Amino acid sequence: MPSELSNISTPPACIADFCLIPIGTPSASVSKEVAEVQRILKRSGLTYSMHSAGTTLEGSWDEVTKTIGQCHALLHANGVVRIQSDIRIGTRIDKKQTFDDKVAAVRKILESDEKTVGEA
Amino acid sequence: MPSELSNISTPPACIADFCLIPIGTPSASVSKEVAEVQRILKRSGLTYSMHSAGTTLEGSWDEVTKTIGQCHALLHANGVVRIQSDIRIGTRIDKKQTFDDKVAAVRKILESDEKTVGEA
Amino acid sequence: MPSELSNISTPPACIADFCLIPIGTPSASVSKEVAEVQRILKRSGLTYSMHSAGTTLEGSWDEVTKTIGQCHALLHANGVVRIQSDIRIGTRIDKKQTFDDKVAAVRKILESDEKTVGEA
Amino acid sequence: MPSELSNISTPPACIADFCLIPIGTPSASVSKEVAEVQRILKRSGLTYSMHSAGTTLEGSWDEVTKTIGQCHALLHANGVVRIQSDIRIGTRIDKKQTFDDKVAAVRKILESDEKTVGEA
Repeated sequence: MPSELSNISTPPACIADFCLIPIGTPSASVSKEVAEVQRILKRSGLTYSMHSAGTTLEGSWDEVTKTIGQCHALLHANGVVRIQSDIRIGTRIDKKQTFDDKVAAVRKILESDEKTVGEA
Repeated sequence: MPSELSNISTPPACIADFCLIPIGTPSASVSKEVAEVQRILKRSGLTYSMHSAGTTLEGSWDEVTKTIGQCHALLHANGVVRIQSDIRIGTRIDKKQTFDDKVAAVRKILESDEKTVGEA
Repeated sequence: MPSELSNISTPPACIADFCLIPIGTPSASVSKEVAEVQRILKRSGLTYSMHSAGTTLEGSWDEVTKTIGQCHALLHANGVVRIQSDIRIGTRIDKKQTFDDKVAAVRKILESDEKTVGEA
Repeated sequence: MPSELSNISTPPACIADFCLIPIGTPSASVSKEVAEVQRILKRSGLTYSMHSAGTTLEGSWDEVTKTIGQCHALLHANGVVRIQSDIRIGTRIDKKQTFDDKVAAVRKILESDEKTVGEA
C-alpha cells in the first residue's frame, strides 16, 4: 500500500459525532456497549459529550478517528463480533470552533428572537 | 405510484436525530439555518433536543419524518437552494423508550462504576 | 399533537440513501434483512438501487420516508425487535435530478481529466 | 494529550462509506468536489467505489480514516472553507469481507427467490 498521499497531512482539528451499533449481540439493548464507549473516551483524554443519539468528540483528525477505531477494537475484544458506526465529522479552516461554540451560536440567535418578541 | 405497500403502517414511535446542512449558501456558518430549524420544531409540538451535532426528536414515524421534511421545505422557501440531512432513526417493539431514557440507561451503568471504585 | 405546521408541505422530490441495521438479532450477518428490504422496495414502485453500504431511492419526501418506515415495520413483523437506519436525504429546488444524474455529472468531469491527459 | 489508549490498535480491516459535503461554497453543485475526491482516492491505492450517495472504500481503519481526512485537507487547500462528511464504517472479527462480498450475499438470497418463483 504505497500511497501517493503519504505526505499529505489530515486536518489539525475536527468535531466528530458518532453513533456506534453492535450487531449480532443477543440483546436489543445497547446501553452496556455505549457505557463501555464512554469509559474508553474518558481514557482517551479528548473532550467528549454523550447525548441520546451518539457522542461528540473533538481533537485532531488523527486523534479522533483513532479513538473511535479503538472503541471498535476494545468492544471486539469484549466479544462483540460486528460493529457499525455512523460518524458525522466536520472540519473548517476559517476559524477555530469547539462543539460548545456551535450550540452557543444557535442559542444566541434564538435568544434574540425572544427579546424581539418581548419588545414588541 | 400505486404502491403495493399502501396498507402497511409505519412504526407508531421512533427516535430520530438529524443534522441538516444547507448547500450552496454563501457563508460557511450554518447557525442561522439551524436556529430556523429549532423554531420550526417548536411549532411542530414534538419533543426535541438540540445538541452540537444535530437535533433529536421523537414521535410517530410519520410525524417525525414529516416534520424534518417541513424543515427542508421552509428553508427552501427562505432561499436555501439545496439541503442535505443525515438522519439516524430508530424503532423498537420490545418497549417504549424516550431519548431521555436512553441517556439515563447509560448514566446508570456508569454511576455503578463509580460506586464500585469508591468501595474498593 | 395539533401541529402548527399541518399545512406546510414536504418537498415534492428527494433522493435518500439508507442503511438499515437490525439490532439484537442472534447473527452478525444482516444479508437476510437487507434482502427483505429489497423485496419491500420492489413492491413500493419507487426507483431504487442497492450498493454495498445502503440503498438509494427517489420519489417525493412522503413516499420515500413512508417506504423506509414500512421497511422497519415489516422487519419488526418478521421478529426483528429493534432497528436503526442511517438516512442521507437531499432536496434541491434549482433543478430536477435523479440519482443517476448525480453519478453522471461526476463521471463527466473525471472523463475530461483523461482526455486532457491524453492530449498532453 | 497523553492518551492512556496509546497502545491499543485500531481494527486491521474496515469498510467505510462516506458522503462529503462542502459548506459555504457559492454553488449548489458538489460534483466538482466529488470528482476531486475520486482523484484523491485513486492516488491512495485503496479499493473504492463511487455511487450516487457516497463512496465506499476498504482497508485498515487507519488507512481508510486517514485517506478521508486527506480528502478534507486537500479540498481545504483548494479553497473549500468548511466540510462535513457522513461516514458509515463497519468492522467485524468473524470473517473477512469485502464490499463486493456484501452485495453478492444479498444478491444470492434474492436470486433464490426468483428460482423459487420460476419453479412454482
